[in-house]
Amino acid sequence: MGSNFGKNLKLSIFGESHGVGVGMVLDGFPPGMTVDHGKVRVDLDRRKPGMEAWSTPRKESDIPQVLGGIYNGRTTGAPIAIFFENMDRKSEDYISSELHYRPSHADFTGMIRYSGFNDFRGGGHFSGRLTTGMVYAGSLAKQLLCQKGITIDGHLSQVGTVKDISLEMALLNKGCLQIDFPMFSEQSALAAKLEIEKARTALDSVGAEITISAQGMPAGIGNPIFENIESHVASALFAIPGVKGISFGSGFDFAKLRGSEANDCFYENEGAVRTKTNHNGGINGGISNGMPIIVHVAIKPTPSIGIAQETLKENGEMEPLIIKGRHDPCIAPRALPVIESMFALALLDLYMDVYQVKDIK
Amino acid sequence: MGSNFGKNLKLSIFGESHGVGVGMVLDGFPPGMTVDHGKVRVDLDRRKPGMEAWSTPRKESDIPQVLGGIYNGRTTGAPIAIFFENMDRKSEDYISSELHYRPSHADFTGMIRYSGFNDFRGGGHFSGRLTTGMVYAGSLAKQLLCQKGITIDGHLSQVGTVKDISLEMALLNKGCLQIDFPMFSEQSALAAKLEIEKARTALDSVGAEITISAQGMPAGIGNPIFENIESHVASALFAIPGVKGISFGSGFDFAKLRGSEANDCFYENEGAVRTKTNHNGGINGGISNGMPIIVHVAIKPTPSIGIAQETLKENGEMEPLIIKGRHDPCIAPRALPVIESMFALALLDLYMDVYQVKDIK
Amino acid sequence: MGSNFGKNLKLSIFGESHGVGVGMVLDGFPPGMTVDHGKVRVDLDRRKPGMEAWSTPRKESDIPQVLGGIYNGRTTGAPIAIFFENMDRKSEDYISSELHYRPSHADFTGMIRYSGFNDFRGGGHFSGRLTTGMVYAGSLAKQLLCQKGITIDGHLSQVGTVKDISLEMALLNKGCLQIDFPMFSEQSALAAKLEIEKARTALDSVGAEITISAQGMPAGIGNPIFENIESHVASALFAIPGVKGISFGSGFDFAKLRGSEANDCFYENEGAVRTKTNHNGGINGGISNGMPIIVHVAIKPTPSIGIAQETLKENGEMEPLIIKGRHDPCIAPRALPVIESMFALALLDLYMDVYQVKDIK
Amino acid sequence: MGSNFGKNLKLSIFGESHGVGVGMVLDGFPPGMTVDHGKVRVDLDRRKPGMEAWSTPRKESDIPQVLGGIYNGRTTGAPIAIFFENMDRKSEDYISSELHYRPSHADFTGMIRYSGFNDFRGGGHFSGRLTTGMVYAGSLAKQLLCQKGITIDGHLSQVGTVKDISLEMALLNKGCLQIDFPMFSEQSALAAKLEIEKARTALDSVGAEITISAQGMPAGIGNPIFENIESHVASALFAIPGVKGISFGSGFDFAKLRGSEANDCFYENEGAVRTKTNHNGGINGGISNGMPIIVHVAIKPTPSIGIAQETLKENGEMEPLIIKGRHDPCIAPRALPVIESMFALALLDLYMDVYQVKDIK
Repeated sequence: MGSNFGKNLKLSIFGESHGVGVGMVLDGFPPGMTVDHGKVRVDLDRRKPGMEAWSTPRKESDIPQVLGGIYNGRTTGAPIAIFFENMDRKSEDYISSELHYRPSHADFTGMIRYSGFNDFRGGGHFSGRLTTGMVYAGSLAKQLLCQKGITIDGHLSQVGTVKDISLEMALLNKGCLQIDFPMFSEQSALAAKLEIEKARTALDSVGAEITISAQGMPAGIGNPIFENIESHVASALFAIPGVKGISFGSGFDFAKLRGSEANDCFYENEGAVRTKTNHNGGINGGISNGMPIIVHVAIKPTPSIGIAQETLKENGEMEPLIIKGRHDPCIAPRALPVIESMFALALLDLYMDVYQVKDIK
Repeated sequence: MGSNFGKNLKLSIFGESHGVGVGMVLDGFPPGMTVDHGKVRVDLDRRKPGMEAWSTPRKESDIPQVLGGIYNGRTTGAPIAIFFENMDRKSEDYISSELHYRPSHADFTGMIRYSGFNDFRGGGHFSGRLTTGMVYAGSLAKQLLCQKGITIDGHLSQVGTVKDISLEMALLNKGCLQIDFPMFSEQSALAAKLEIEKARTALDSVGAEITISAQGMPAGIGNPIFENIESHVASALFAIPGVKGISFGSGFDFAKLRGSEANDCFYENEGAVRTKTNHNGGINGGISNGMPIIVHVAIKPTPSIGIAQETLKENGEMEPLIIKGRHDPCIAPRALPVIESMFALALLDLYMDVYQVKDIK
Repeated sequence: MGSNFGKNLKLSIFGESHGVGVGMVLDGFPPGMTVDHGKVRVDLDRRKPGMEAWSTPRKESDIPQVLGGIYNGRTTGAPIAIFFENMDRKSEDYISSELHYRPSHADFTGMIRYSGFNDFRGGGHFSGRLTTGMVYAGSLAKQLLCQKGITIDGHLSQVGTVKDISLEMALLNKGCLQIDFPMFSEQSALAAKLEIEKARTALDSVGAEITISAQGMPAGIGNPIFENIESHVASALFAIPGVKGISFGSGFDFAKLRGSEANDCFYENEGAVRTKTNHNGGINGGISNGMPIIVHVAIKPTPSIGIAQETLKENGEMEPLIIKGRHDPCIAPRALPVIESMFALALLDLYMDVYQVKDIK
Repeated sequence: MGSNFGKNLKLSIFGESHGVGVGMVLDGFPPGMTVDHGKVRVDLDRRKPGMEAWSTPRKESDIPQVLGGIYNGRTTGAPIAIFFENMDRKSEDYISSELHYRPSHADFTGMIRYSGFNDFRGGGHFSGRLTTGMVYAGSLAKQLLCQKGITIDGHLSQVGTVKDISLEMALLNKGCLQIDFPMFSEQSALAAKLEIEKARTALDSVGAEITISAQGMPAGIGNPIFENIESHVASALFAIPGVKGISFGSGFDFAKLRGSEANDCFYENEGAVRTKTNHNGGINGGISNGMPIIVHVAIKPTPSIGIAQETLKENGEMEPLIIKGRHDPCIAPRALPVIESMFALALLDLYMDVYQVKDIK
């Protein structure tokens, strides 16, 4: 239960970390879009383990097998089904999870929820590996949105104590992400990489904040009360392992603002209604107002660390846990394409409430 | 579209701020619970306008009319339908909204979304008045959860720059909320009230942060991937006007933490599995671990302020908007019971995934 | 649980037969349609009890109170909420249901399902009175479909052993329903009324078959596999008390047909694709093919009859049940507008999958 | 859109007739059930083509590949994902469908619905081959229901003009289906096979009626109004290609019955509440009453016949269509396990509304 998302678009996720593979079924995607496999590849590679010094060395080719829904290179309107075989499944590394409840992992809660019948190896169905299917689905969503003039951008706005310049500033100045690290400022990227490297050498990990935006979204997308943009996007993003906070626009800074500071006044610019500021992150009453949609996402430090941790075993004994195998000292760079993906899917789902998607190629 | 929430419990909200009234239909509530109308009354009064110096003077008796689903004082299992008549509907105060797009309100987005056919008076279906039905439904959910040993608490953890002591600390020390203000610390309450009063006299408003907890939730509630606790709770809470951020446990502070600081190690205490710290806010892998569930909610300052604001009119002219009528200088005290309500509904909905609710009275 | 229907349109039904009233909330209805209250009134009157010799004499004005969603005579896009007060609630007539499990009624099953907490009076939430809200919602759906050139027709194709001429024949010949009875043939209407009168004087009741059609539905509405027209329409119609069978086109006659007889060959007529025959009732692969959609509905005889019936009481004793109060000897004439209504809602819901509803007045 | 079914159990179907394969994802299935692969194999073989003289000679091994959700032989609680590779995909046989709108097939409607982008080969996503996944899912559902004392039976109650004895009679007398044909009566089976053989040699096909039952279902399963047993089962069964009618108990015969004949009076038998007759097919007010649930399903003749048919081509020309390749002259024997499967899934889904499924093995 729980592995389904969406209403116009329905995403179903399946598989386990150390089973035969992982995959997804995406129902409701409009017919006729030519799938740009190169762009999908780029997004999958951004999420793929073993690409960088700071990521786990698990080797996965992550080659998507199309099981349905794409014909002659185009989406057909039938469910798009994708499968990724697990190549590098070494259950040995994870044998300790049989015994230990790893701190801040789902070993204990999964065991309780499924009465001990879940495939616990490497986190099983709770594993970050399940996000591979999200990225494929999200890449398609981004390609479609792009054809409608809607672009998704994102960066690591914070790693440990290091902050990047703001996404809105960066976009205004047509800033580009650094080639080897998803921050706009070269200086911040250097400092952040250092912070991660320090965590890695200390056998530790470090948290981060990701900020994403959607530009070009027309006004009038979303719904009042329950199916508003914030609810739908938050619901999509909290499905990603490690996400522990979501905010829009000024987010938690609103607490200390006055209304006169926080209100976004409307004006007209070349026929388009705009707001002078964008504290509300492009959303009023749950509906897009035509300004960039801005979302902040809190990412907790990877719970798998090499430092010994005193924690409970399933047999009731306390024993230090030393997690073998290398793990990502900071999951945020690899989480970024996943977050963009679920963001794109949530927005496209709401876009389809209002627009019948046609004239795509 | 969009005025429905939940899966085992389905909440449907209807009505408009200045129509004949507002209400809700709650389908799926278990049969046999004796409704404590006194507790419902208390919750409705906490949300009711005109109770305090800092709230709008709109006078509403907020007397719930039961249209179905309760018989001989008990829930029947059929949909519970509740209606609140609008007594104090003065459309005059809001006539300016015909002309102005009020900053940070849904006047502009609602007009676009509904092609101008929406009932815009006082925000119409987007109004905070719609939350009355949420409070009735949530009060029932809290009563049922309470019978299962699960209690919901909440406070204003921050108003402007004033912070309260932490909810977890307060509960550990069996702290009580102040009688006239929902903070634990007397000192903080005094300072917060002063902050609100300052905003009010400046014809301005101020934001806040609310923190809520659920204690007594058994381990194993929630689901992996999409229907996890965080997604479901966030989806429920972002439906409340003014909410712009949701986080769990250490939330956005995770960005600067190391894994060794953030991980919650398991141990056993009198046969129960516990964690030494609770940075994850009682949730691992989207599922409750038996620790208190902790949620932080960012509340933006009330957008209706008396200060003149330069904003667009529907006819395309810029003209200062001066909102007449008094409005809440801080909406957070009245938002608190609404937030508790939607939190309780989201948790009960997930609880019902796992437990068949029986033996209630 | 269970009182919700639809995906683009969400209909929620509430109330009880002898509670304060019954009603509905319809979310997702497009904004901007002028509600023709006269047409709604006509549909409600067709369903209303006490209009004819063959119906129960319960007196209900069935005046709809609009609680939300209609402003300045037009739908707003917000949920449409309607309430009908119960005027004529005589619980005395139904006191026996406390004791007897009325045959073919929901007294026993409702008691089990809700552990005895349901409002059993007059069937409670299971009562045919709940269909009042369906008729209001369906009347709106019919009005909108009509603006799109789609018309819903229906008749009693059979009452007891009396059959009417076929709906398709009648429509081809521009036949009209008889003024006082929903059959096309005067002769059939006379015979059917006689059959009903005979049942009534025998303190008995009689079953019927209703046939409905939708003409003007464009090709391409519906979906493959689960959300096809047949599934969605059947799901909607089986929600109506007394319905025990649904078939499309040649329905159960298909069993004895050969493929060469049953297949509908395509041809072109003035640029439109048509089929020479319409055995498939306008549906291929779950999707409309542009031909009239034809549905047959089996209606069981009203279970409330005056003849003594030997049945169980809740206390375990067998005792003859003699149902006091007059009841409809044939429910089909009053069921017809309800069936049209749910048919219209199901079709509009699917229509909205494919078309963004705009340009309505 | 449309390839998803269920609420506690969510079944998602994917794939195309002549793509790489077909499959399904079943989310929400309870953890801990040992999958009896032998029983799954039996059900798959009953559906498999090429087993009998009357079925298409398409050769498919139909070997299910488990992609997730089963570990150590047991269901884990995570989504069960199954894939069947298409071995025998000869697109040549179907090349004519590029040109012709095959009568009573989805070629025309699929083309309209998906703007021509659908994979039309062999019916694509509309093909009966998609039911393979339904059978796997349904076999699991039947195994679980069986552990709870609920058994699903079915037979061909009619083929052409040949009728079998009634299912209820057969079960009372502990009748068994014939070894080589799913009818209870040897005589009926012989006559039915003859009828099919006659259709086959005439290059034609013949329709049928299937009747299924669920015995042992406890009273109190199902819901009032929309999520009743009839709506849910009908919605599930109409998803199967060829199904054009569904009725319960006396079904369309109710039209000519009197209430005094049709009503099922209650009595007590060894502590259990029973009804003397079962015209209502085990369902009152949408909820099970403890009697066998009886469903009749109308199956149209296979539309693929060898006889030349005058029908339209996509280019607008009329030309006789002669379908090459052999096809099932009667699809009903192979449809039976699919119908049982979707019936079992719909019932289990409703069962899970009321019972928390535990203690399975």
